[in-house]
Amino acid sequence: MSDAPATKARAAMAAVTFSPSGETIEVPAGTSLLDAAILCELDVPAPCAGQGRCGRCRVRVTAGEVERRSNAGLATAEILDGWAVACQTYVGGAVAIEVPERRRETVRPHGHAVAEPESLPISCDWRQNPAVRTFELDIEPPSLADNTSDFDRLRRALAQQHGIGEVRAELPMLRRLGKDLRMANWKVSVTLEMRDWVYGTYLPPRLIRIYPGAFHHASMGVAVDLGTTSVVAYLLDFATGRVIDTASAYNKQIACGEDVISRIIYARRKGGLDRLQRLAVETINDLLVELKQRNRIESYEIHEITVAGNTTMTHLLLGLDPRYLRAEPYIPTLSAPPKLVAGELGLRANMLARVHIMPSVGSYVGGDITAGVISSGMFATDKLTLFIDIGTNGEMVLGNKDWLLSCACSAGPAFEGGGVGDGMRASPGAIEDVYVSDATWEPTFRTVDDAPAVGICGSGLIDLLGELFVSGLLDKSGHLDLEAPTARIRVRNGVPEYVVCRAGEGGAERDIALTESDISGLIRAKAAIYAGFAVLCRSVGVDLADVEEILIGGAFGQYINIEKAIRIGLLPDQPVERFKFLGNTSAQGAYAALLCVSIRQDVLDVAARMTYLELSADNTFMDEYMSALFLPHTDLSDFPSVVAALQKRGGGAADARPATT
Amino acid sequence: MSDAPATKARAAMAAVTFSPSGETIEVPAGTSLLDAAILCELDVPAPCAGQGRCGRCRVRVTAGEVERRSNAGLATAEILDGWAVACQTYVGGAVAIEVPERRRETVRPHGHAVAEPESLPISCDWRQNPAVRTFELDIEPPSLADNTSDFDRLRRALAQQHGIGEVRAELPMLRRLGKDLRMANWKVSVTLEMRDWVYGTYLPPRLIRIYPGAFHHASMGVAVDLGTTSVVAYLLDFATGRVIDTASAYNKQIACGEDVISRIIYARRKGGLDRLQRLAVETINDLLVELKQRNRIESYEIHEITVAGNTTMTHLLLGLDPRYLRAEPYIPTLSAPPKLVAGELGLRANMLARVHIMPSVGSYVGGDITAGVISSGMFATDKLTLFIDIGTNGEMVLGNKDWLLSCACSAGPAFEGGGVGDGMRASPGAIEDVYVSDATWEPTFRTVDDAPAVGICGSGLIDLLGELFVSGLLDKSGHLDLEAPTARIRVRNGVPEYVVCRAGEGGAERDIALTESDISGLIRAKAAIYAGFAVLCRSVGVDLADVEEILIGGAFGQYINIEKAIRIGLLPDQPVERFKFLGNTSAQGAYAALLCVSIRQDVLDVAARMTYLELSADNTFMDEYMSALFLPHTDLSDFPSVVAALQKRGGGAADARPATT
Repeated sequence: MSDAPATKARAAMAAVTFSPSGETIEVPAGTSLLDAAILCELDVPAPCAGQGRCGRCRVRVTAGEVERRSNAGLATAEILDGWAVACQTYVGGAVAIEVPERRRETVRPHGHAVAEPESLPISCDWRQNPAVRTFELDIEPPSLADNTSDFDRLRRALAQQHGIGEVRAELPMLRRLGKDLRMANWKVSVTLEMRDWVYGTYLPPRLIRIYPGAFHHASMGVAVDLGTTSVVAYLLDFATGRVIDTASAYNKQIACGEDVISRIIYARRKGGLDRLQRLAVETINDLLVELKQRNRIESYEIHEITVAGNTTMTHLLLGLDPRYLRAEPYIPTLSAPPKLVAGELGLRANMLARVHIMPSVGSYVGGDITAGVISSGMFATDKLTLFIDIGTNGEMVLGNKDWLLSCACSAGPAFEGGGVGDGMRASPGAIEDVYVSDATWEPTFRTVDDAPAVGICGSGLIDLLGELFVSGLLDKSGHLDLEAPTARIRVRNGVPEYVVCRAGEGGAERDIALTESDISGLIRAKAAIYAGFAVLCRSVGVDLADVEEILIGGAFGQYINIEKAIRIGLLPDQPVERFKFLGNTSAQGAYAALLCVSIRQDVLDVAARMTYLELSADNTFMDEYMSALFLPHTDLSDFPSVVAALQKRGGGAADARPATT
Repeated sequence: MSDAPATKARAAMAAVTFSPSGETIEVPAGTSLLDAAILCELDVPAPCAGQGRCGRCRVRVTAGEVERRSNAGLATAEILDGWAVACQTYVGGAVAIEVPERRRETVRPHGHAVAEPESLPISCDWRQNPAVRTFELDIEPPSLADNTSDFDRLRRALAQQHGIGEVRAELPMLRRLGKDLRMANWKVSVTLEMRDWVYGTYLPPRLIRIYPGAFHHASMGVAVDLGTTSVVAYLLDFATGRVIDTASAYNKQIACGEDVISRIIYARRKGGLDRLQRLAVETINDLLVELKQRNRIESYEIHEITVAGNTTMTHLLLGLDPRYLRAEPYIPTLSAPPKLVAGELGLRANMLARVHIMPSVGSYVGGDITAGVISSGMFATDKLTLFIDIGTNGEMVLGNKDWLLSCACSAGPAFEGGGVGDGMRASPGAIEDVYVSDATWEPTFRTVDDAPAVGICGSGLIDLLGELFVSGLLDKSGHLDLEAPTARIRVRNGVPEYVVCRAGEGGAERDIALTESDISGLIRAKAAIYAGFAVLCRSVGVDLADVEEILIGGAFGQYINIEKAIRIGLLPDQPVERFKFLGNTSAQGAYAALLCVSIRQDVLDVAARMTYLELSADNTFMDEYMSALFLPHTDLSDFPSVVAALQKRGGGAADARPATT
């Protein structure tokens, strides 16, 4: 007998039917249920991108045969009831699969939306030198004696009536030109992109819309912060230069992985990159629809768009293969994205609206950081400045107007609530603020929206860690004091933990605790970030104490309590007045580039002159990291205020002696 | 009773089923069979664009009810058999329609394909300043110590290894860049468009292809002459500058109308413009496929394309609404088309290959004429030159290097065989060369490919008209001598005619004759063209005799017999040595612009400085036209050679006295 039958059997096709959507697809036996669901474009969450780690892609097998390679996280009763981990379960024959409906999460609106012309990092002549302008034209109708073409007639009127010597138009505009001009009886308003350049060469203005008659429409721009987790869009009125509305949502790509690495892995699946690209566009489009409806503007009135995102987000939005970002030596396809219009990307704005995507510096220092450096103004200051954006990665830039040095530390998702048992994003019910009494060791806390507690978000984790340490319940190595006289500390499944909220407290449905393994993850995260500061400073021969300003940007940064972040050794122990919270610097940088054309050139210049320090190639990083794997740090002389606090509260004082590694 | 039921009944839907294709479509009752066929994209010819004039859209109704508004051209037996004129027959209820299969016509290959660097109208440094160039690169692979992005790495290598300081890339290229570079192990050849400009500003070179390893591929360009009737494509090898192959075909748009006016009418139908655009692209694509297969090259090796066509063809290729070209005051959307790449138009070349479309001057002086003026070299000469392109329209340009004046006369399709009973295009069996004995009045003729005669093409019509006139069988007003002693002249259906070929002669299946009404149409056509010459000269105050060179371009021009064309008063009676046949000047101009980048700027300059004289707005045109409505002309003093010929052959001598209008 030959092998042929076996080979044939392996390639057999099987029908997979999904409920409640009713979709059916034929796939080769052996295909994972997750892949089958993706092919049907169903919304099955896969935060770990199908690696079998997160257990969130749960589906129910209601009929047919499957092969289960893992049931990670499922109880026996659930398995008997048909529940399966979609990425670890494979089609055996015809199967029917039920996909549970997803609970939609809401996103906390971002507070510090400082976006008005006065907030620009440098003075800017946006009124004299606007990005887009609309001109009213009274065009002479054609005649046998003057049979100039429609477009040349429009050009002539622009030159004669407004001194605009040249103008360009693309095919979509030209296809409607004849009708537009005649329907309006040759009295029109034309919107032009005024300052369009390619590699330093300014091109003639570009026609993006013709309106009939006088101009009574809106001229709007949208600045987008395309974050891995959440996406924020600012609606800018070009008439006033101000942001008149903001919308935000979770990035729909979360269904394909929570962090950039998971998404890069997801992109390698068949159709994965296309789906991620589409989800990025859909996320932005939902925000555009929201802003348009609420402010009663039409798509065609959105005349320009800027987008700031990290390098992975930029690659995915553009449909660029992100695989080389993840593999050593971590190479992006490009730093400065090409010129695009909304129609090319499928964005629901004027299809000819220019889309400026902020340039990146390296695989892990992206357009969000370039935008942040711009909005912080540090690229134009004399002062030695440290700019920090803490998220899944900690990205940081050291420098001033003369030089800029950047790096990224892989902090992991701990500060965003990921990888922590009861961690969560800053949505309602997240504990965001904690105080632990050093008398009773009882906690007091506040939750987002004062909702019943459901978990702990990043700022709450920093607070809690600091409080436990200063109150003496936690030692510098991250071990809880099991002998402390409080029932809040307990051991469950062999792991010590501190229960910050018991089931029933404030309406909580279950116990919420921080375990020693959570603590260990948080310490590693803060150590990576602090080591980044140290390496940056060391590589240019300055001391952290020489840094005159420490600017905290990013969506997450604005919720950090500086004092408590210093206490755990996440931030350097410098006088509080040196720290500044800048809010969502990525969105603000996108806003600045949207309003002010000269800043667009600044962004490119900043990206080009920023040096990128690859920490995995730096010999000193690992030493610095090891030294930082303690609370607050091995070298306590760098943390005088923490030593003082420990001594004052007495708790951790016993440990406040210099440690040896 | 109200009108409502009637209105409802009118909107009722009915199914139309076509055989043999098997397509079925639901249309509102009252839809014409032609429109239904168009919606199904069936190939029903409609040379008159559904005006009920040509009778070529014949179909057979095999079942169901139709309303016939006209049966023009159908015999009663045919009507009883179900035959109907599709554009004049309307759906009454469910119907079944048979579409007869079309006979494919072949196109005569164009002879004078002079296209080599030496044929360029002005000296050109195409070797030093090529349109596209390919560079071999040995790129240093990335490392942790040098993590420059892929694109910046490629730019750096281009700068270091070839001194190309800047380069641009678009999204399709960037999407494959990472993989292309790594698959080739960082040794690649990159093809760049070297000289890309926008409104006089040169942009950095643009990346259009990456090849792995050393460059062993072809680098080709294609120059297209997009004619209303036939389309010719030249394949240019950028390595040698020579045309290595040519392909030609009828324009597929012929199914939607034979002349530009019919197509403009067709474009107003639902989906009509889209179909015309697609047919233009399909026609060019068929030629591209033919050239690629025959020369074993791949799509991606076609690196640049130029297209020359009349203004209507240019509008239809770009999908621009042509309706304003036809309505007074005859206004095109644009003169110089925007920058495009092959992928935008759907052309099967490298999708990033630049497509340069030759600019037009007015609605009836298009890119074919601009290209012709370029290829003729008249834009750079001191000599007073008249350039003529005779087709459905007679387009002409008078001038030299200092000034250029153009106009177009609507000659009608007579010289292309249209509107003449036995007229046809120059396909096999067309009588193209005629001599009539002034002794026996018997004709001698030659057909294309020496096939049995089936009709008379343009050059044959000019010959025959001149022969009949000089032999005395035809008077100056276009009347046949019914008393001449030859059976070749007869009266059929009340109309006198000359039978140039009887059924059976040389295998002809039926009689082929030229009627007095055909003759009248030909005289109107030649009068329009001659009047054009006269008005052009008069408007700048020169005499036709002052013209030093008369250049005859266009696909049709090359087959004209000068002497016989002078004899009927189509061409001015000037010494034969002043005439030059230039062959297909439109294609040659497209070739010149493809090879030589400086000529691309010349083409734009020529189009911009050429004055367009609108004859319908010119008071003297009608007088000149009326004077030319005789053979050869009212004013015989302008035709001394014709007078001499008449006197010599004796035939028409009696009429060779000055006539009064």
